[in-house]
Amino acid sequence: MAYLGVDIGGTKIITAIADGEGRVLCQENFHTPREGGPEAVLAAIETSFRCLMDTHNIPQSEVQGTGIGCGGPLDPYAGRIEKVVNLPGWEGLLLSQYFSDAFSAPAFLDNDVNLAALGEARRGAGINISNMAYLNVGTGIGGGIVIDGRLYRGNGNAAEFGHQIVLPNGPDCPCGNHGCLESLCSGTSIARRAREYLEQNPKSIILESAQEIERVTGAHVSHAARLDDELALKIWKETAQYLGIGVANIINILNPGRIVLGGGVVMKNIDLLFEPAKTVAIARAMPVLARDTEIVTAELGEDAGVIGAICLAMEGL
Amino acid sequence: MAYLGVDIGGTKIITAIADGEGRVLCQENFHTPREGGPEAVLAAIETSFRCLMDTHNIPQSEVQGTGIGCGGPLDPYAGRIEKVVNLPGWEGLLLSQYFSDAFSAPAFLDNDVNLAALGEARRGAGINISNMAYLNVGTGIGGGIVIDGRLYRGNGNAAEFGHQIVLPNGPDCPCGNHGCLESLCSGTSIARRAREYLEQNPKSIILESAQEIERVTGAHVSHAARLDDELALKIWKETAQYLGIGVANIINILNPGRIVLGGGVVMKNIDLLFEPAKTVAIARAMPVLARDTEIVTAELGEDAGVIGAICLAMEGL
Repeated sequence: MAYLGVDIGGTKIITAIADGEGRVLCQENFHTPREGGPEAVLAAIETSFRCLMDTHNIPQSEVQGTGIGCGGPLDPYAGRIEKVVNLPGWEGLLLSQYFSDAFSAPAFLDNDVNLAALGEARRGAGINISNMAYLNVGTGIGGGIVIDGRLYRGNGNAAEFGHQIVLPNGPDCPCGNHGCLESLCSGTSIARRAREYLEQNPKSIILESAQEIERVTGAHVSHAARLDDELALKIWKETAQYLGIGVANIINILNPGRIVLGGGVVMKNIDLLFEPAKTVAIARAMPVLARDTEIVTAELGEDAGVIGAICLAMEGL
Repeated sequence: MAYLGVDIGGTKIITAIADGEGRVLCQENFHTPREGGPEAVLAAIETSFRCLMDTHNIPQSEVQGTGIGCGGPLDPYAGRIEKVVNLPGWEGLLLSQYFSDAFSAPAFLDNDVNLAALGEARRGAGINISNMAYLNVGTGIGGGIVIDGRLYRGNGNAAEFGHQIVLPNGPDCPCGNHGCLESLCSGTSIARRAREYLEQNPKSIILESAQEIERVTGAHVSHAARLDDELALKIWKETAQYLGIGVANIINILNPGRIVLGGGVVMKNIDLLFEPAKTVAIARAMPVLARDTEIVTAELGEDAGVIGAICLAMEGL
């Protein structure tokens, strides 16, 4: 028996095949085709799966199911994409049907960050935790909620932790709103805030290493902060305040056994972001609730999503 | 068969007895004894139950269970109070045990607002809704979450919607934190904000009707707003903005089928608070998620908690 899993991102795709116990047998990472629209992307994923199956002698008859992770919003029950900000032309696409037809086995679709949460719950930082919240801080901020050991989807798109409003008159957010956690703490937002500060006060190691304001990224802010640059330290301190408030709100609303923080911005900045945000979260959540919630880093790295997709293929919705 | 339910508040207690189908047979409302500590309160509740049972010819052998609602935080699984802000001396009290001993039947404890949520889910505004969030805006702000038709408790104290932080540098909150939704939108906070504005600008119908700044309550702010008083309208507009953000955050995190708003401050101000907050919530939640979540007012009024307590007695934790 075999299960297929795919994590479809705006820039990168990961495919994997697992055995009947869900152990990953093989995996392929490749760039998302930039031309040819969704048809080209789906064809590339199908080709990847078929090559992996050929190489590892897995006949199609052994495929029991496919799990698909993709950016949302989407309708997991219909297996349909609603709107993907960074994949234009995907609206209305019946992703599950494409793969169930291609491999003659059930296919299931869910939000990529939900699947990263499922991956962490089954194989990573959330093993044996009944109620878990997962927060992914990368280019954007996404989340996933596990309740009683199962993904909680609400009406299909729950756990948009990145779009909780933590600063009513805060900056514009890619979602169209403003003051969302994502508009303050995502990698993109950290870089934008750094550029705004540099316009006012260009004396900073951030600008020395980036050379031009337009080229500043979160990595430059991290680098400068580790050299004790005042502006960079201020930016990280503010970021940790907002992220800590976002985590405190999750504690007060969900009171989960564990909150798992993952994504590149967290994992590359344990010292500058994760630890300070954890301190803020514990200080600003209700004490009895904070006492019961552990705050930890993710364990599966960028494979969390595809591992979750394999779990989805095995478990169904 | 009979079930007992009690809703214990800082100023008022409601007891009720229901038949085997959970239909309320009789109910008593009385003031919470101010002297004698928890012993006096528990004795008064037990006496109330025994009088109701005598009057309605219900022998103790018919009592199948007791449901108890009380302010939190508390440990529902141990049936123990952790800390009740407005009932000093209750820390550590084993409430469930008291009633299971008294009536020789199982007794279950939960947060009073959780039980109001359960009441609304079973008999009020949330009937047949799988995933529901309940927000009670009164003296304070509490909440309840129903998932797959059952109360979601997390580690025991989930759904503290009133203590989500919506203004990082906002006013002090009774919980010890600051900038919580409760610190801006509870009845107490509306009155406090009104008094602060009146110190700066005493020309308002609010002050005319309250006569002294210290006596201003939310009711004075409502009265003045309905007479088109500029300051009062501004206060309600701000309150609706913050409450709408709190509701938008619940939509984005839980994506429930329905959000039920109850409590005196909402129910007495449908025009000034509920409708404007609903508009803000829909505007500030993610559109796909807001589309799937109905926002409605509660239906059971102040009996929601005791009806939920009867449901808890019947269903257990």
